[in-house]
Amino acid sequence: MPELRKDIVTREWVVLAKERAKRPSDFTQERKMRVVQPYDADCPFCSGNESLTPHELLAYRKPETKPNTPGWRVRVVPNKFRALDREGELNRRDVEIYEMMDAVGSHEVVIETPDHRKSIPHMEETEVEEVILAYCNRYKALREDPRLKYILVFKNHGVEAGCSLVHPHSQIVATPIIPQKVWGKIKGVQQYKEYRDRCVYCHIIEQEIRTRERLITENTGFIACTPFASRSPFEVWIIPKTHRSCFADMFRLEVLEFAQILKETMSRLYYGLIDPPYNYTLLTAPCDSDMLEDFHWHLEIVPRLITPAGFEMGTSIYINVVPPEHAARYLREVTIPKEQAVTF
Amino acid sequence: MPELRKDIVTREWVVLAKERAKRPSDFTQERKMRVVQPYDADCPFCSGNESLTPHELLAYRKPETKPNTPGWRVRVVPNKFRALDREGELNRRDVEIYEMMDAVGSHEVVIETPDHRKSIPHMEETEVEEVILAYCNRYKALREDPRLKYILVFKNHGVEAGCSLVHPHSQIVATPIIPQKVWGKIKGVQQYKEYRDRCVYCHIIEQEIRTRERLITENTGFIACTPFASRSPFEVWIIPKTHRSCFADMFRLEVLEFAQILKETMSRLYYGLIDPPYNYTLLTAPCDSDMLEDFHWHLEIVPRLITPAGFEMGTSIYINVVPPEHAARYLREVTIPKEQAVTF
Repeated sequence: MPELRKDIVTREWVVLAKERAKRPSDFTQERKMRVVQPYDADCPFCSGNESLTPHELLAYRKPETKPNTPGWRVRVVPNKFRALDREGELNRRDVEIYEMMDAVGSHEVVIETPDHRKSIPHMEETEVEEVILAYCNRYKALREDPRLKYILVFKNHGVEAGCSLVHPHSQIVATPIIPQKVWGKIKGVQQYKEYRDRCVYCHIIEQEIRTRERLITENTGFIACTPFASRSPFEVWIIPKTHRSCFADMFRLEVLEFAQILKETMSRLYYGLIDPPYNYTLLTAPCDSDMLEDFHWHLEIVPRLITPAGFEMGTSIYINVVPPEHAARYLREVTIPKEQAVTF
Repeated sequence: MPELRKDIVTREWVVLAKERAKRPSDFTQERKMRVVQPYDADCPFCSGNESLTPHELLAYRKPETKPNTPGWRVRVVPNKFRALDREGELNRRDVEIYEMMDAVGSHEVVIETPDHRKSIPHMEETEVEEVILAYCNRYKALREDPRLKYILVFKNHGVEAGCSLVHPHSQIVATPIIPQKVWGKIKGVQQYKEYRDRCVYCHIIEQEIRTRERLITENTGFIACTPFASRSPFEVWIIPKTHRSCFADMFRLEVLEFAQILKETMSRLYYGLIDPPYNYTLLTAPCDSDMLEDFHWHLEIVPRLITPAGFEMGTSIYINVVPPEHAARYLREVTIPKEQAVTF
């Protein structure tokens, strides 16, 4: 019998169609490990091609190297094809019976490495750490702008995940409104708080560490687990054990722990599912401080292994064919090659 | 400057990134018209292969032909790989801190034609009418089951839209809960009613007929238009001019008018965008009668021409690159070949 499982935060249901269940190898058959060169002359994100991007907003680079020249390790630039623009005022207005405003906001690209082929599983932990530090620093800079209400850090990897450039990069988009989907999560967190007098994510952590059924890995500061109501095969959440509403307020040691668990988790997905396409989103509280305390930031990783269709579109109920307990066991047992071993 | 536009019903925003705008031909380049045969020996939906499906629940067929044999024009069967099952009770229960239940419901396939290659643009209007009648009749049968709270009719067309079988078919899924996304629409309709004392969809119709900017076509009973806050290039809504909460309660003449505008709209998409992949969802009121009156049923057609990625996943804000006014003008001007002409 297929199951319906409820997301404890958003109250969205998912269908777990175990009868349609597939083995992990069903999701890896069509892909081979990508072989790409460390440098691509046409890639705007490769070292040496800095003139192909807008001027950098932030870079971690060798001492005495100049902005917008080689020597950087992580580099943040405005998105050349940005969906939201830093200039101007909202100019919110009615058009006939409808409502609109100018898309004031921000759209930045975090170039994670100068090396065209080096994704998170191939990076040193200190390199992943610098990517996260770049997220934190740009977040802190953007939240100073009172026009911006929400800031989302996310990453698209692979064509099926909507990624058009191979070179490893993430994006930071700031919007002048708090998105409905974010409201849905905030509401879920607040209602749980009122009803149970505790944070739902803190409760999830306690639960998942106790049963270990859906736990993939943990370290001092974080757990990585598959959610009880996984929307997609091998969906993974990374949740900090310390209740904190905004990721950018992590202490330096927590950044290192987050880098460690992120590298390990991405490596398990990479070697276990042969470099799957995925999106990850770093969900954090809105910029306005009065909603800060209740939220508990976390990272959601959704491999793009199935195509949501009309049913998902009409109902927002996802149909998943891999029980999260099976996915977690599979990812726990993945062997990460020695030279890529996590040595935290 | 890109724009943010608000969906008047759901209050979701979309980004309209006109600077990234593409021409319609950018969405047609990679496809060619599919050439398939009228019969495929391996296809479970082709006439003659009835033994490959579960027994039929409904069929419109020649007099004196037997169930589960050739002679049918439209045929409805249970989905062989169903996500929800007709048997049993919900058995709603807690699992640790979470909640789940058995996926009691229904999952049926509407085989729209015995001909492997005949999609809506190639059908006669009377054939489309029978497909819609099948939707109505199965809907009415399913809503008698008190365990079922919501029934969604939808269609996936093309691999990018999550369709695995070429043979033209739609699906009907009934769930034992009202999906969150449906609640969102109901709430939007109710709030508009309270605030403006009128139906938001009736208001949209009035608006779109007056300005004609986003109108694609209309007939006595329906309009087809691109929505002000289109989530994807060439998104189209078909809305009945008569306020009615449930599509299955249409009068016979309205079914014919719906068939006519559906065929015309699907033909404009088919010839204008060279057989694009799409999902359509028939959004109607929940089965429970106390929510019936306020809702206004309609069909949403979403061509799958762009890949939603991390930003959409984290915010539910879609980024669209084709203004709905341009899309409507383009679809209005499509020439439908003579032999396929709409003769209503």
